[in-house]
Amino acid sequence: MATELNTKENLLPAIISHCKEYGFLFQSSEIYDGLSAVYDYGQWGVELKKNIRETWWKSMVYMNENIVGIDAAIFMHPTTWKASGHVDNFSDPMIDNLDSKKRYRVDHLIEGYVELLSKEDPQMTEKGNEILVKMESLLAADDFSGLKQLIVYNNMKCAVSGTCNWTDVRQFNLMFSTQLGSVAEDADTIYLRPETAQGIFVNFLNVQKTGRMKIPFGIAQVGKAFRNEIVARGFIFRMREFEQMEMQFFIRPGTQKQWYEHWKEARLKWHKDLFPNANYRFHDHLKLAHYADAACDIEYEFPMGFKEVEGIHSRTDFDLTQHQIYSKKKIQYFDNDLDENGKAYGNYTPYVVETSIGLDRAVLLSLCEAYQEEDLSTAEKQDSRVVLKLPNKIAPIKLGVLPLMKKDGLAEIARELMVDCREHFYCFYEEKDSIGKRYRRMDALGTPFCVTIDHQTKEDGTVTIRHRDSMAQERVAMKEVKDIVLRAVK
Amino acid sequence: MATELNTKENLLPAIISHCKEYGFLFQSSEIYDGLSAVYDYGQWGVELKKNIRETWWKSMVYMNENIVGIDAAIFMHPTTWKASGHVDNFSDPMIDNLDSKKRYRVDHLIEGYVELLSKEDPQMTEKGNEILVKMESLLAADDFSGLKQLIVYNNMKCAVSGTCNWTDVRQFNLMFSTQLGSVAEDADTIYLRPETAQGIFVNFLNVQKTGRMKIPFGIAQVGKAFRNEIVARGFIFRMREFEQMEMQFFIRPGTQKQWYEHWKEARLKWHKDLFPNANYRFHDHLKLAHYADAACDIEYEFPMGFKEVEGIHSRTDFDLTQHQIYSKKKIQYFDNDLDENGKAYGNYTPYVVETSIGLDRAVLLSLCEAYQEEDLSTAEKQDSRVVLKLPNKIAPIKLGVLPLMKKDGLAEIARELMVDCREHFYCFYEEKDSIGKRYRRMDALGTPFCVTIDHQTKEDGTVTIRHRDSMAQERVAMKEVKDIVLRAVK
Repeated sequence: MATELNTKENLLPAIISHCKEYGFLFQSSEIYDGLSAVYDYGQWGVELKKNIRETWWKSMVYMNENIVGIDAAIFMHPTTWKASGHVDNFSDPMIDNLDSKKRYRVDHLIEGYVELLSKEDPQMTEKGNEILVKMESLLAADDFSGLKQLIVYNNMKCAVSGTCNWTDVRQFNLMFSTQLGSVAEDADTIYLRPETAQGIFVNFLNVQKTGRMKIPFGIAQVGKAFRNEIVARGFIFRMREFEQMEMQFFIRPGTQKQWYEHWKEARLKWHKDLFPNANYRFHDHLKLAHYADAACDIEYEFPMGFKEVEGIHSRTDFDLTQHQIYSKKKIQYFDNDLDENGKAYGNYTPYVVETSIGLDRAVLLSLCEAYQEEDLSTAEKQDSRVVLKLPNKIAPIKLGVLPLMKKDGLAEIARELMVDCREHFYCFYEEKDSIGKRYRRMDALGTPFCVTIDHQTKEDGTVTIRHRDSMAQERVAMKEVKDIVLRAVK
Repeated sequence: MATELNTKENLLPAIISHCKEYGFLFQSSEIYDGLSAVYDYGQWGVELKKNIRETWWKSMVYMNENIVGIDAAIFMHPTTWKASGHVDNFSDPMIDNLDSKKRYRVDHLIEGYVELLSKEDPQMTEKGNEILVKMESLLAADDFSGLKQLIVYNNMKCAVSGTCNWTDVRQFNLMFSTQLGSVAEDADTIYLRPETAQGIFVNFLNVQKTGRMKIPFGIAQVGKAFRNEIVARGFIFRMREFEQMEMQFFIRPGTQKQWYEHWKEARLKWHKDLFPNANYRFHDHLKLAHYADAACDIEYEFPMGFKEVEGIHSRTDFDLTQHQIYSKKKIQYFDNDLDENGKAYGNYTPYVVETSIGLDRAVLLSLCEAYQEEDLSTAEKQDSRVVLKLPNKIAPIKLGVLPLMKKDGLAEIARELMVDCREHFYCFYEEKDSIGKRYRRMDALGTPFCVTIDHQTKEDGTVTIRHRDSMAQERVAMKEVKDIVLRAVK
């Protein structure tokens, strides 16, 4: 007898439902029917996220002598975003349907139309491609009236109202704004940062000087960023509020190619160390952002296909130069290393290679990679389990402590083990339900080890330790459990 | 010869300047002349904050079987704040001067006037007190026109314009708002959460059910909160963007007194475990918030006097009941424990005792308590040092690794020690300047241990380990350093 398992097509819905059922992720403000594209981390999700964050921080800051961290505020002086280009450029062309009031990203509306066109009539594929080429050139030229013409001429309709009654095409900035200030008539409009990177750039001099940092060196940061995405989708893949882990590496101009390659490899290695069997690939950006001279993504094969998890960007001296111009403060570094002619390199504005990973995406990747449905059926009995085969070091709980029963003093012995271990790693105590059921629940949370305390424990001080992935059980001395787990979760 | 040290009066400015000079805290967006009441954590401040956060999380979540964590988003459904009372009540009465455009909190304006009154003429003290009593009763009655009358009648002037030309008194909500949404005409006004607690209340059912939690149990959370403070002051004591560490403990109605006392003691113990010699006191709230049936603060004696670091609040069932009303969803718990008559307690809305600590205030407390200027002068030589006597477990760097000189292979040996140790705790490598200078820098950052590698190390494998507080030095085997530090920083 075999159990019916989820196929690849419905893997993401199965993972989403698992996350809800087992306290990893909840829709934000669910009792008020939710807030679109915002999620809350539940009791096990928060631990998973925390462990991934810590793994990244350790690998970046503690393991590299020339990288230090900072934690800049979400609120920054508004000129920061003028200098960075976000006030002027961090926007998408949008169009509103006048009947349904629904707003569309222009490229999404046109792409959706073209897709439908070729689906309904394969002979129209070529025409569709022409429209897409036209769209690209209009977008590149910021030709908004041309874009509207393209939409109206082809009679593209709103999916809700079914009409072709459109506003003009307008730019829609993706930054959230709010009002700061104590003086009514003079309240400043400030933004919720759309990326953490600028907090590092504006603090470059502070960190370099007070930390006596020598180039090449990096500044790392983890924190929230906010984008008013029009189409936010893919569970926690694209959210309006999300967490970034970024590192800006400051280098001598001319060395950017070499450092770009260095960080590409280093970051891919980090991912592969965590999930050796996962499918990753590099995706080079063909169209570069205005600040970049090279850029690529590390993509992971999510259930919905290959998608970006992390970006590595050679940002040149764009950001520091912009902040120098807008702040009128000299943002330079004096390099007293000697060049090939024996002359000090002297003053320059450093170049930057950046690594930028979405923490929520790393959580989603971990869940997708770890989630497995296993058919455990035998000839007699249909059976299956869902197990999260998470790497030990990011698993929310490291050890489940399960007395066979509450009575006969077994609970008390189990609690002794808790006291022994919980100083060192997160332990979970459970005394209700059958051992089989408790094992399955620990599997579903990704707990690598479970220990059962039974009557034999009272006699010889041994317990049963059970391994999540193999489901193998062995008898060990209770006093050895702490070290067994400690060794395995490093 | 003695060195002149800072007195208690100028201790806070000295600490602020130390924080800037040594990379603990920078004014936010400093290159743009800063953003008022917002700060960035520098390379050592981020580690100090991180370690305090982790110490709290461990003591709350990992050490208590019946407390789990969550991480709710900053963005929440706007009805949350209607239900919690923040939309209607989270505001201060304000008045604007029409000439200077400066806005004042009404109570600050009046208190400032009274202070000046009695300073200029001690005989006016009684009149001043009468004004304050009057103000309290007007505030309690929300009598805004009465408050304006009080200001105008007493001819209270704006400090900037010097005039008594005022607007009406109005309520000013302290929540920051922003617009969320993809539909232009229907954008939702949402708020940046002014407290993390509501993220726990709206997730009560999710966590209780998916975590199979039994009352009494707690939910802990660390995260950013935002308040548009009119007068934000005291360095990082009162900021517009700050981080809270909150725990809501859900209990059976009628047991709140006992749990309130429990958490008062438990939280004070936590503080005293970290800083046994610090001056703490309880301050009971005489005027209770609308949701509370008991509340107190744990106050610490900052350089500017006793101030709140943490609050313990018995919040009754106010929040869960409000969310039940506004969401029209049943937010109850079925308690199958038996009462004294052998009957199950059954369904009820749990009561809540909350502990709420400001993480930034805990950082400031740590800096104030740890900061010491020591006169090390001898008869021959004037000398002093600034040392942060931080508890080892929250110190940013645990070990300074200092080769006596770069050459003769000493740097290589030092780096071997780095490799051995940095997997386990944060190490800092420095090879420039004299050993004395390097020790002083490590003292200023609060590093509990330094190790010097010298020529003798090459011969017998020993190093000098130096203790921050006593400045005592001893010779130990290099291979023992890791364990010495590990034992001391737990």
